[in-house]
Amino acid sequence: MTSSDDSSKMKTSSEKSNNLLAKRYIGLEKSIWTELNALPIVHKAIDLGQGFIDYAPPHYFIDLYKETLDDPNIFLHQYTREMGHRRLVEAISNVYSPYFNRKIDPLTEILVTDGATQSLFNCIHSFINPDDEVILIEPFFSCYEPMVHSACGIPRYIALKPKPESIKADISSSSDWILHKNELESMFNSRTRLIIINTPNNPVGKVFTRNELEHIANLCQKHDVICISDEVYEWIVYDENKKHIRIATLPNMWERTLTIGSAGKTFSSTGLKLGWTIGPQHLMRSCRVVHQNCVISCPTISQEVVARCFEYELKRINSSKCYFNSISNEFLEKRDKFVQALKECGIKPVVPDGGYFILADYSQFAGDKFQSDTDDVKDIKFVRYLTKEKQLATIPATIFYTDDHHHLAENYIRFCFVKKDETLDKAIEILRKLKTN
Amino acid sequence: MTSSDDSSKMKTSSEKSNNLLAKRYIGLEKSIWTELNALPIVHKAIDLGQGFIDYAPPHYFIDLYKETLDDPNIFLHQYTREMGHRRLVEAISNVYSPYFNRKIDPLTEILVTDGATQSLFNCIHSFINPDDEVILIEPFFSCYEPMVHSACGIPRYIALKPKPESIKADISSSSDWILHKNELESMFNSRTRLIIINTPNNPVGKVFTRNELEHIANLCQKHDVICISDEVYEWIVYDENKKHIRIATLPNMWERTLTIGSAGKTFSSTGLKLGWTIGPQHLMRSCRVVHQNCVISCPTISQEVVARCFEYELKRINSSKCYFNSISNEFLEKRDKFVQALKECGIKPVVPDGGYFILADYSQFAGDKFQSDTDDVKDIKFVRYLTKEKQLATIPATIFYTDDHHHLAENYIRFCFVKKDETLDKAIEILRKLKTN
Repeated sequence: MTSSDDSSKMKTSSEKSNNLLAKRYIGLEKSIWTELNALPIVHKAIDLGQGFIDYAPPHYFIDLYKETLDDPNIFLHQYTREMGHRRLVEAISNVYSPYFNRKIDPLTEILVTDGATQSLFNCIHSFINPDDEVILIEPFFSCYEPMVHSACGIPRYIALKPKPESIKADISSSSDWILHKNELESMFNSRTRLIIINTPNNPVGKVFTRNELEHIANLCQKHDVICISDEVYEWIVYDENKKHIRIATLPNMWERTLTIGSAGKTFSSTGLKLGWTIGPQHLMRSCRVVHQNCVISCPTISQEVVARCFEYELKRINSSKCYFNSISNEFLEKRDKFVQALKECGIKPVVPDGGYFILADYSQFAGDKFQSDTDDVKDIKFVRYLTKEKQLATIPATIFYTDDHHHLAENYIRFCFVKKDETLDKAIEILRKLKTN
Repeated sequence: MTSSDDSSKMKTSSEKSNNLLAKRYIGLEKSIWTELNALPIVHKAIDLGQGFIDYAPPHYFIDLYKETLDDPNIFLHQYTREMGHRRLVEAISNVYSPYFNRKIDPLTEILVTDGATQSLFNCIHSFINPDDEVILIEPFFSCYEPMVHSACGIPRYIALKPKPESIKADISSSSDWILHKNELESMFNSRTRLIIINTPNNPVGKVFTRNELEHIANLCQKHDVICISDEVYEWIVYDENKKHIRIATLPNMWERTLTIGSAGKTFSSTGLKLGWTIGPQHLMRSCRVVHQNCVISCPTISQEVVARCFEYELKRINSSKCYFNSISNEFLEKRDKFVQALKECGIKPVVPDGGYFILADYSQFAGDKFQSDTDDVKDIKFVRYLTKEKQLATIPATIFYTDDHHHLAENYIRFCFVKKDETLDKAIEILRKLKTN
């Protein structure tokens, strides 16, 4: 080896060693969630942060799980079909076809994934070329934006904004948070590839109305944009007048919509990490390519279990006992109890129409003690204080917003209220004590 | 809207509609595996194709699974730690630390994934910027190459080649398949980012020797290249003189190696789709970023089950009863039985030193009936014929090779021999009948 070879190698080596993350992931290293999820454990706090129930899943869940393990079919322990275990895609087709007003083909129009998150990943990475634009509606689930970045797409942001009068009110509704029509229209252009919507919404709890969805649908059609509809909270809607509407069922939208669901949310067992995408074959083909080059296929046993759970519910789907129907009543009592308590404490709740969460304005409650500065936004400071000092874990609202829109959210924190009464009572006690101090 | 607006929209719309797959995935749409995995089901063929056992997993597996479901800890049904369920990463650390000659930090040096495939995805996508080169050793597991493409990297291929005298022999060994040292050296340059090795190898069954690994290790160090070591068949080695060597344990290699393992292969339950990456913190940090922006975290119950399985084995890890020690003996009997039958039929086996598979030269057996042409390579034709006409499913060897190297593999097919005796007997019967006809 000549010395010139040597020096060029040295240079290259140091360049390589200093670049230990692909450029499209740079800036995505820090996840505030990792800190926030660890905090309640370290500080032994009551956890109204993470989005899951703290009591048992539906009564049949573990029975059907064990029944599956007792099945003598040894192939249940080996790889299954790449796009989804046959029994599960058939069950999903049987359950969902009536809700989509069409027969969903189990073999070509459903893709089972490692959780709704991996569905989002597949959908976003399937269609984005460098510099394609993706419209994201704030507040949004934290992974939307990094997935657009890692696909080399350009996120364009538009925020749901609370009506001015609702901000002042002691109690308001998630339906007060709206998109401005003209602003939304201005987001669409020839580079727009995708829009991602989330209804019922996390964290606001907004259930998009038919009118709102029609406006989005029209823009998608006008600009030939694919709509990814994250509907993991589809069964959890509190107001009978505000039914969950699937944008895929609006005229001419089936062929441009990918609808994402979650077994974890549907059966109150988020640990399943099993989800699915439903959509037209010409779009699903692309999602399949990304899927098979990421995980190939999903776990067999849990797919079989979820299939059996769906079959169980399908038999009573029109009964009030069906979990998809009863779950909202179960959570509604918890919502109303917690809303009442927040109101009494002067933490102004945005009463959700759907989902696991209540957004609430803590600014009067906390006074001037917490202020945004260059290090952190004030809701993050308040959440850290509540968790560390008062043993109550919640989630700051600004983490669902881009930096430019922090001012819209910095007075809010998110409570997950789908917890057993004992947990909610303890949380309420902490807030009441804090108020009197 | 003006008419010029209209026409530009129209143009854009048709462009968008015609491009329904991100460019970096173009060319990856067709997976021969999808066809090959479906064939034995359609034709009710004996399946020596797909890589899994067709009998029960270890006796304790289902017991520990049920024990986990009986655990009153309701949090086992909800999200767990992003980098891996605490009990599992501790179990992995406890089992593997002695094999890596170091204490593996469970919290920073292990990432649990949705199967070894997702580990590969995380590792490849973490480090590749456009035009970075990745050295792939043929034959390789089919997902390596598309993952490099979808990360916009450039694969560089080098093939394991059988020694000329071994090709002629009626029976040869996987250790006859070697890399040419000079050729390997010529693959490395300043743009080389990664090399992926697979030992024991699928489909050849080669267990890389210390000498071979040292050569690779030296080149990695000289050119500052990260080594991804796919070791999912780590426990399955048939020759006591050819122990599995982890390249991460060679001098100065820990800090540049990511070692991938599989619960599915370790516990003969490929349906688990659970894997892990072990490596130094500075590399794992990058893998974590890709992971948390793809699936966030893995299923809780199956992680807990695998943790309990590891704990079970750890108590008897030095005993011959330990599954990690006994599994090779169990499979060795099957290997020898099947090798003998192949030899008798004139299908020349390459006797594997490790793993699930036997590669075998069928060219004498099949005669001149199958010839490569522009449509298909002859091994694919032969495999289709065997499956459809004779109800015996196998895998063509060329699918582990690039087009340019098909000539190295077109005379071989892969048999998965880790099947119950009844299955092997049926397969052997089919081959014997074919031979006499």
